[in-house]
Amino acid sequence: MDVKDPQQYNTLLQGNEGKKDTLPWLKQKASSKLTKKTLYKRIPVLGWAPKYDKAAAVGDILAGVTVGLMVIPQALAYSGIAGLPPQYGLYGSFIGAIVYIFFGSCKDVPMGPTAISALLTFQSIKGMGPEHAVLLCFFTGLVQFVMGIFGLGFLIDFISGPVSSGFTSAVALIILTSQVKDILGVHAPGSVFTEIWKNIFQDIHNTNAWDTCLGIACIIVLLVMRVVGQMKIGPSKGELSSFQKCFNKSLWLLATARNAIIVIVCGFIGYALYDGTSPLTLIGAVPAGLPSLQPPPFGGYNRIENNTEVHVPFVEMMANLSTGIIVTPLIGLLETIAICKAFSDGKPVDATQELIAIGLANIANSFVHAFPGAGALARAAVNNSSGVKTPLGGLYTGILVILALLFFTPFFYYIPKAALAAIIIAAVIFMVEVRVVKPMWRSKKSDLFLGVCTFVACLVLPLEVGILVGIGLNVLFILYHAARPKISIERLTTSRNTEYLMITPDRCLIFPSTDYVRNLVTKHSIRQGIPVVIDCSHIYGADYTAATVVETITKDFALRNQPLFFYNLKPSVSAVFEGLSPQDFVVYYDHDQLDDLLEKQNAKKTDTNNIV
Amino acid sequence: MDVKDPQQYNTLLQGNEGKKDTLPWLKQKASSKLTKKTLYKRIPVLGWAPKYDKAAAVGDILAGVTVGLMVIPQALAYSGIAGLPPQYGLYGSFIGAIVYIFFGSCKDVPMGPTAISALLTFQSIKGMGPEHAVLLCFFTGLVQFVMGIFGLGFLIDFISGPVSSGFTSAVALIILTSQVKDILGVHAPGSVFTEIWKNIFQDIHNTNAWDTCLGIACIIVLLVMRVVGQMKIGPSKGELSSFQKCFNKSLWLLATARNAIIVIVCGFIGYALYDGTSPLTLIGAVPAGLPSLQPPPFGGYNRIENNTEVHVPFVEMMANLSTGIIVTPLIGLLETIAICKAFSDGKPVDATQELIAIGLANIANSFVHAFPGAGALARAAVNNSSGVKTPLGGLYTGILVILALLFFTPFFYYIPKAALAAIIIAAVIFMVEVRVVKPMWRSKKSDLFLGVCTFVACLVLPLEVGILVGIGLNVLFILYHAARPKISIERLTTSRNTEYLMITPDRCLIFPSTDYVRNLVTKHSIRQGIPVVIDCSHIYGADYTAATVVETITKDFALRNQPLFFYNLKPSVSAVFEGLSPQDFVVYYDHDQLDDLLEKQNAKKTDTNNIV
Repeated sequence: MDVKDPQQYNTLLQGNEGKKDTLPWLKQKASSKLTKKTLYKRIPVLGWAPKYDKAAAVGDILAGVTVGLMVIPQALAYSGIAGLPPQYGLYGSFIGAIVYIFFGSCKDVPMGPTAISALLTFQSIKGMGPEHAVLLCFFTGLVQFVMGIFGLGFLIDFISGPVSSGFTSAVALIILTSQVKDILGVHAPGSVFTEIWKNIFQDIHNTNAWDTCLGIACIIVLLVMRVVGQMKIGPSKGELSSFQKCFNKSLWLLATARNAIIVIVCGFIGYALYDGTSPLTLIGAVPAGLPSLQPPPFGGYNRIENNTEVHVPFVEMMANLSTGIIVTPLIGLLETIAICKAFSDGKPVDATQELIAIGLANIANSFVHAFPGAGALARAAVNNSSGVKTPLGGLYTGILVILALLFFTPFFYYIPKAALAAIIIAAVIFMVEVRVVKPMWRSKKSDLFLGVCTFVACLVLPLEVGILVGIGLNVLFILYHAARPKISIERLTTSRNTEYLMITPDRCLIFPSTDYVRNLVTKHSIRQGIPVVIDCSHIYGADYTAATVVETITKDFALRNQPLFFYNLKPSVSAVFEGLSPQDFVVYYDHDQLDDLLEKQNAKKTDTNNIV
Repeated sequence: MDVKDPQQYNTLLQGNEGKKDTLPWLKQKASSKLTKKTLYKRIPVLGWAPKYDKAAAVGDILAGVTVGLMVIPQALAYSGIAGLPPQYGLYGSFIGAIVYIFFGSCKDVPMGPTAISALLTFQSIKGMGPEHAVLLCFFTGLVQFVMGIFGLGFLIDFISGPVSSGFTSAVALIILTSQVKDILGVHAPGSVFTEIWKNIFQDIHNTNAWDTCLGIACIIVLLVMRVVGQMKIGPSKGELSSFQKCFNKSLWLLATARNAIIVIVCGFIGYALYDGTSPLTLIGAVPAGLPSLQPPPFGGYNRIENNTEVHVPFVEMMANLSTGIIVTPLIGLLETIAICKAFSDGKPVDATQELIAIGLANIANSFVHAFPGAGALARAAVNNSSGVKTPLGGLYTGILVILALLFFTPFFYYIPKAALAAIIIAAVIFMVEVRVVKPMWRSKKSDLFLGVCTFVACLVLPLEVGILVGIGLNVLFILYHAARPKISIERLTTSRNTEYLMITPDRCLIFPSTDYVRNLVTKHSIRQGIPVVIDCSHIYGADYTAATVVETITKDFALRNQPLFFYNLKPSVSAVFEGLSPQDFVVYYDHDQLDDLLEKQNAKKTDTNNIV
């Protein structure tokens, strides 16, 4: 849409964004559905596929394979976070990535298992096995898809920066905690931070020295490789020699493939030390082949309890998942949108489309026994720096995972659990957002307070309750903000030397603030006893409650015979106030009018006195 | 406090109300506690008692006795709403009213049982008998008192006009419904509107003709007397003859005492028709004498079930009361504040003091077996028009109730239930606030929608859930309001003929709106491709999330080489943004500066281009 005439542009915008009323999306839907533009927006592949060229193909293949090398060890490891056998992570790493190609609006999003979604799965299924995880995956997708259809992507706007930082940092610490037990080789069940640490210390005497040594060694190697990958030789400005370029590229490749390298090396160590039993804790047998394609367990499932089969009906499974069905989709969206924003280069992000894309991807995943996934930030960064050009990169990632499932599973047997734990720990420690503390402190201290509250709440309460506490606190901040406008009060003098009181509220008059404003206006008006002007320049909205208060105030002033005027009231707000037909309600828009109004009022007052 | 110098006045106000930050009450508390002024504010009797004179005494005695005549039949009737024997209403009508004399800040509030508090009691105790009601009374008082101490009176600001109207109207209909069964003499248990009506129709064949006829007759008589009381003879302007005055006064007295008259007349009818049994349903034996003074059942109580005593422990009683402990105190405050506002003549209302006063009154009431009470609007109106001068009027009301308990209870036996039901129905039909629909529609249609939602929710759900639904919806309105600022976009030209885009958000930039604003700014800036100015005149507040978005926006513009300036940014908001040390962040305050800035930017751009 190109508008040439500036005047037309202004009008258009005021009609479009300037006057949004209740339920604007309903109107938008009604008018914009079923157009070609909408179709291209909702199935983005239609837009980029016709323009696909060789350069894009090379970028996508390189990036897709690199991400594939990264996702295989991560998938095995994240299954552990979710409390599931290792193959479930792989099951969630191919179909979803391929579905995302068609519907995703952001080229960098690698759809698959993430640390956060694995942890949310773990907390939601409460150790109840893969059937619950698969059902959660389906409903996560369904909720996301439905939210997308109804344009509810704006809901994540209510997760502010501080809450998001507090949540992510807490998640990182909880994941780290859950992996410490694998590094130590101890047994420590539980899902809440404090609970896991207590259990670790109770079982600390069972520490397995082999696991611990290997784990710590892996963490150190991974961190060193990460640092090495960011180093570059040669001058920082100017031309590099081809050797320097090649060396820098190799360093970067080494760092990017560090997880795969660690897994392969440790796999060989595990294999070498294996003679029927192993001093290391290994991940053990991983079933070979692709998962069977079947619907999620809508009819419930049978679990074995004390050697007898017990049927667990669907309703009971849903009750077990409880709030996980709401929180998992939202956090998945939050993760994905964070990626889109990070790599959007200033272009707007379409939360609605991302909801539809990851929703469908999760639904598809639930038919191949996966647990819920989302866009993973660490893989997105690698995807981006590997030069991905379109979402098609996901295809190559998916193919690599399928090959791994078909041919490499026998080798997974020997991978030590401690190596996977090391991979996770070396990744999540950078998710603890210590770096935001200083700018937050300098920028707004109450936001830091909020972030810390969310962080602590997520650590000591179940994760989904913790983030709800953070969001709730944040909403209270907004409400307080709406309820307590700042009001400046000045004694001014008109051009004809009449003193009056100018009262200026700084924001909209809506119900939680009306009584506060009324009390302040009344207090200062009575104390000063001179004419009062309420400056409404900043009042862009009002409601019925405000209108009733304005009616009362004008009545009170009339009873006291104290003049009261409203200055610069927007017509839309004036209409709200006049719905109650208040008497003695005088609005003026020009400072020069004030003197005339005051004289008129004086004359009226004298008249009234004469009659009485 | 009188401030003579206007300059000083301004400074003082800006220091005082202009800069409220987080937790302002903490600071206020710390500085203002324990002064003489605070003492007079918290024990208002100290203020008015020394100035008490004969004129005040006459007004208070007249008003107190009139209200007393009104409260006795009301108390008997409201006990029925609460599902308790009739004496419990009387138990709540004397001690509380006397406690209120010392702490109440509003002369018109008649502390005692109200229709709404009786209904809330009924729904909270769920038919579990007076012990639960007494415990609820104690905790209602405690919650109110504690809220008062912590200055949480502002919480009722979050109950807006529409929600309050919807709630009150629903309460009126539910009470009316609950009394219809007494008028018909049928048996219809239940507490939710739809449930009661269903039960009434199921038992309609048991209608008692005597009860029905008496009840309908009473309602008609009461409504006629109400109308008659508002009539006046003689000229509407000018002097009335003493006969006219006396006649008008008699009419008013007749109307005010109409409940007492109905009760006495119907009591005689009940007595005349009684011969061992009665064709009418009578209220039956009311125990004579004052209630014993004893603490509420903190140790639980014994209930008789199938002829054996079962001990109900305290914890179970609290669990039974559940949310009633939060909702009852809040609604009690809402009722009381409504009275204070209605009769304050424009003076500010002290919600904190009212919380303390009705809190202590309820606590005192709980020691004499009362159910929760509050200020009753109907009695307050009579109190005010009877010429009450101070809260001391409550003393005479209390004395009258004590006399009734000591000497009149034998006569209460013959009062027909239908007469009490008629009194309630004739009162509550005026609580259905049909009159607010029209002004609300004209003022703000979304508020009418909200009011109707609350009304319906209160009818079909338990009352406390219904009002929470209303408040929740209302909070969503505020959040939407905070999340979607109106943004006007104009193409303007500087004095030196450079075109630029002026983007003006109309309110504070806080987290739910930041992404929306960023998307809009980005979309229009890219589309227009000319320098952009963000007009921050209306932005009075910002948070960390907004600061991160501002940082991103400035970065995006710098990448696009598109100039971006911030106009008229308040220093306090600027400090928030600068906490993140954004680069290329330029603020100006004078329209003339813009041209210079644009030229400087142009020069810089050319420089950069030359280097590269």
